[in-house]
Amino acid sequence: MSSEVMLTPKGAATRARIVEAAADLVLARGVGGTSLNDIRAGTGTSKSQLFHYFPGGKSELVGAIAAFQSERVLRAQQPSLGELDSWAAWQGWRDAVLAHYGSQRHWGCPIGALATELIGNDPERAADVARHMDHWRGYLRAGLSRMRDAGLLRADADPDTLALSVFAALHGGLLLTQTMRSLKPLEAALDGALTTLRAAAATG
Amino acid sequence: MSSEVMLTPKGAATRARIVEAAADLVLARGVGGTSLNDIRAGTGTSKSQLFHYFPGGKSELVGAIAAFQSERVLRAQQPSLGELDSWAAWQGWRDAVLAHYGSQRHWGCPIGALATELIGNDPERAADVARHMDHWRGYLRAGLSRMRDAGLLRADADPDTLALSVFAALHGGLLLTQTMRSLKPLEAALDGALTTLRAAAATG
Repeated sequence: MSSEVMLTPKGAATRARIVEAAADLVLARGVGGTSLNDIRAGTGTSKSQLFHYFPGGKSELVGAIAAFQSERVLRAQQPSLGELDSWAAWQGWRDAVLAHYGSQRHWGCPIGALATELIGNDPERAADVARHMDHWRGYLRAGLSRMRDAGLLRADADPDTLALSVFAALHGGLLLTQTMRSLKPLEAALDGALTTLRAAAATG
Repeated sequence: MSSEVMLTPKGAATRARIVEAAADLVLARGVGGTSLNDIRAGTGTSKSQLFHYFPGGKSELVGAIAAFQSERVLRAQQPSLGELDSWAAWQGWRDAVLAHYGSQRHWGCPIGALATELIGNDPERAADVARHMDHWRGYLRAGLSRMRDAGLLRADADPDTLALSVFAALHGGLLLTQTMRSLKPLEAALDGALTTLRAAAATG
């Protein structure tokens, strides 16, 4: 992000518009399948304009897309995501996740797709995506920690491991929505994950 | 596969060698990041040789890579994968999956990565990958059906939904091994999935 430029409010709005339109292109065809020429054509931007807003080129733009998609995906899970300290809240989060991904034109998760594609091609951007995913997973872990402290989970339950298992179920469910073109795997994955959490509930 | 050519045993061996070497290149850099020139250089194959074995070009080669990776990944899970009709067998499968992916030079799953990358770029090959994944998931479902029939799962347990939740956990765990560069998420995902199955166990 060291190459990021200072922008006027109007410039920031233009940059945001480019990122949003480019995010859609990358979502449909992947980073590798989307050239800077495609992005210029799809966003109605000149070469010099694109260079002005993204002096670091495609990699910098991809980093901005990852941040944009991450912010959008996390916002769609709020307020549930920040309040995962009761069983009702987990159910609400499950419903919010299904509602968000079910309302998208595309299947799967833009963040998971970026993670998979960038890992071998752009380690720096892949690390950005990993950080976004850690931030996301942190909400799950924080909720589970609070539930354990409140006595809702067994004292020996490990919030970190449980959060990992829920987060994995979520992302695998999202991957399978792509291959199966159905929301059912995501539903099965989330319900399975909540069953796993319930198995760690304090009894009595 | 209609463009597939008839091959002598020697020709079949050469073709298999190309597929295996190309599979490694694609694993490291993705389909989009691997050109036919890269594949020629990486496999020591001439342009006409590559066209002889893969008259359908890169897409046909990618289809062969998907079949090769699928066969390899499924073989590594055998015999457990075909015998998932006891709790001990599920534990054995979990261990086999962890051992296989833990022994790879790369993180993540070649099949899941192909699924994500091909979905927007090559619908025909994406459908091939989806079929490989359905085949894989079918083993989980078949085992769970037999367990229900044998009274190990509750009569109202749905083998299809349970298989989906386990398969999602597996693929999400594999995705997170990539972003986190650790086997821990896969372990947490599989153990979470087995907890979900245990919650559907017949009691008494």
